[in-house]
Amino acid sequence: MIYLDHAAATPVSDKVFEAMKPYFLHDFFNPSAAYLPAKKVAADYETAKGVIAHAIGAKASDLVITAGATEANNLAFSAIVTEDIFCSGPRPAGPSPRAAGANSRAAALRNAPSQNISSVLYLETEHDSVRKVAEQYGGEAVKVLPSGVIDLDDLKAKITDETQLISVSLANNELGTIQPLAEISGIIREIKIDRLRRGIKTQLLLHSDASQALNLLDINVARLGVDLLTLNSAKVYGPKGVGALYVSHDARLKPVIYGGGQENGLRSGTENVPSVIGFAKAVELAKEHLNGNRKKYASWRKILLAELQGYELINKKRSLDNFVVLCYNGMDAERLVFLLEEKGVYVSTGAACAASKGVKSHVLKAIGLSDAEIAGSLRLTLGETNDEAQIHEAARIINKVVTQEKERLDNER
Amino acid sequence: MIYLDHAAATPVSDKVFEAMKPYFLHDFFNPSAAYLPAKKVAADYETAKGVIAHAIGAKASDLVITAGATEANNLAFSAIVTEDIFCSGPRPAGPSPRAAGANSRAAALRNAPSQNISSVLYLETEHDSVRKVAEQYGGEAVKVLPSGVIDLDDLKAKITDETQLISVSLANNELGTIQPLAEISGIIREIKIDRLRRGIKTQLLLHSDASQALNLLDINVARLGVDLLTLNSAKVYGPKGVGALYVSHDARLKPVIYGGGQENGLRSGTENVPSVIGFAKAVELAKEHLNGNRKKYASWRKILLAELQGYELINKKRSLDNFVVLCYNGMDAERLVFLLEEKGVYVSTGAACAASKGVKSHVLKAIGLSDAEIAGSLRLTLGETNDEAQIHEAARIINKVVTQEKERLDNER
Repeated sequence: MIYLDHAAATPVSDKVFEAMKPYFLHDFFNPSAAYLPAKKVAADYETAKGVIAHAIGAKASDLVITAGATEANNLAFSAIVTEDIFCSGPRPAGPSPRAAGANSRAAALRNAPSQNISSVLYLETEHDSVRKVAEQYGGEAVKVLPSGVIDLDDLKAKITDETQLISVSLANNELGTIQPLAEISGIIREIKIDRLRRGIKTQLLLHSDASQALNLLDINVARLGVDLLTLNSAKVYGPKGVGALYVSHDARLKPVIYGGGQENGLRSGTENVPSVIGFAKAVELAKEHLNGNRKKYASWRKILLAELQGYELINKKRSLDNFVVLCYNGMDAERLVFLLEEKGVYVSTGAACAASKGVKSHVLKAIGLSDAEIAGSLRLTLGETNDEAQIHEAARIINKVVTQEKERLDNER
Repeated sequence: MIYLDHAAATPVSDKVFEAMKPYFLHDFFNPSAAYLPAKKVAADYETAKGVIAHAIGAKASDLVITAGATEANNLAFSAIVTEDIFCSGPRPAGPSPRAAGANSRAAALRNAPSQNISSVLYLETEHDSVRKVAEQYGGEAVKVLPSGVIDLDDLKAKITDETQLISVSLANNELGTIQPLAEISGIIREIKIDRLRRGIKTQLLLHSDASQALNLLDINVARLGVDLLTLNSAKVYGPKGVGALYVSHDARLKPVIYGGGQENGLRSGTENVPSVIGFAKAVELAKEHLNGNRKKYASWRKILLAELQGYELINKKRSLDNFVVLCYNGMDAERLVFLLEEKGVYVSTGAACAASKGVKSHVLKAIGLSDAEIAGSLRLTLGETNDEAQIHEAARIINKVVTQEKERLDNER
């Protein structure tokens, strides 16, 4: 098997698995329990959060652990404040939605999507877990250039005095395109200064989904200038079903899930200790091997681009080193995926959740590809399950399959 | 170590751990991916859901997998429909909130807590993950009798034509008290018939949190007559961070988390395959050993009640077989927990999440205990980590500690 779909899922590495094991079998105590072994588990949990936080230049207390990146993205949008939009009538009682962790559904509800004023901007190439939430808030999409990089002029043009939150992923999940977050946060800083001058108190927050980037980029929340950052364990050789949201002091969230009050009341539910321990170990390993892996993937990417034939490279610019997105014009990539699978090579046509629904990639559409080009596009994402020999072998097999398929199509004509 | 706090947390059993292992390390594929190994993982995931569903007399398609019981309880309440409560003005565009899985935050928001009419009833002894959500919906608490069993007269008195959802846990998490759900659903059926006669179309749903009961009671959703049932892996020797909500065809939920559209669009996010496989294995084992375990725990409970001294039994009636709730009047249970811990016996004073906050148990208060009695109450919950020798030993140690503590208190006087 040659697995080239690491952007869709990664295995749990052996070291991560070993790190989790005792917390499943022996140190299983409820971190909220009063006795010492439980207190030790609670301490280990906090330490693990600290490791994850440290990797992005933050503190454990800045993180809210979630059941994955999708939940973290959803939670990030709870920072948006909008007044009663259904009417200008009196408000129900309840804490102010600006209050940190306002623990009231009524307050959360005042946080309603504005039907007329768009308080949310998001990049049109975002993952569904951002787009679908943004749409609920009447969010407006910001265009990307043909390179897949954000169109900063379009962003500037679309920011209004009502804009509260801008969501731009650090690296796109279909193209691997890295967005200039520092530049974006610079623009946001200017606007905030201008708003202050004009006495406009509306918040302006920058959220970024860093799911794909955690093990491929050196991430620092201060340097990026983000207020909210989504992290994902399942994409960095940690367990599925766990993620985290970094929350700056400027962002005030409201709970999405109510209950025992864990995670500072923002995300109730018994702490998923083994998964967080595993997530932390995965992050630790990712940071340890960051530079080595980047070099390795970059060289493998070069090999593929050199040895593959008859393709057009789609993600030319500013891409994560492990993303190779190719277009075989006039071919049906879905069929190529199937033919490659028969040869033991596993690739995808785009985001797994989108691919499964057979919908055309909104990302490839956004960068201006024609339907035919989209239909012929393959995403190869390299990772820890690969070695250099596999990369050469993959190139050979893909060339062979593509050639055979081309002959078949020519004969049909 | 003698662990007597199985209601707070259970270890993952070896068989469950072994069942999960391959899905962490080898069968790690994204269930939404197009190639065969991923499709196999997707099939295994569905099979696991089927095993969990079968244990309560349901089908895989009736379950929504969540990140735990707390999230499942929160999701259950999304079935409540209330009209714009902030005003009588025009509604924003958006699908009807009655529409199955209405995928619109606007619709979700119309589902606002009524400030004047209570559309939700919940048992006053419910876990915070039900109480805190119910409170957001302006829910009204239904009283329990001194036995801890629901006061059916109070329930009947509080059901109005506006009541849409009634939440009563199958077994209480502090007392183990089993509630007469079949009787409650009988009452609900009568009311529904009467509403139909009078042309009232308001829904009336029964939700039950069965977190504590799955491995101790034979659960069948049809026999219980519930529309929504919460299941919890972490309490039945499965992994933490996974649970499920059973949803009958009468209940229409709205997503709490938006994204890739997994779990029929009700709970987006890449499926947590290893945890669901483990959850299913735990459920399978629980069902296999249900009767044997009940007998075993019942006999151990008898041993404790016979050998322990100077206590008053609190959960006399209709309790799960593994719950022993004792009151040592005039003593400080917090201190007993600490002294027992020094002797290697781990018990609790109540729900872990409440205990950690040092708040008085609302459950013990609800059954009419005085502050002094609450302060002197210990919860012992038996489980798979115990054997009969441990039970005798625990009784001996608890008696010793209580006697010493009594002497200390007498000397102080």
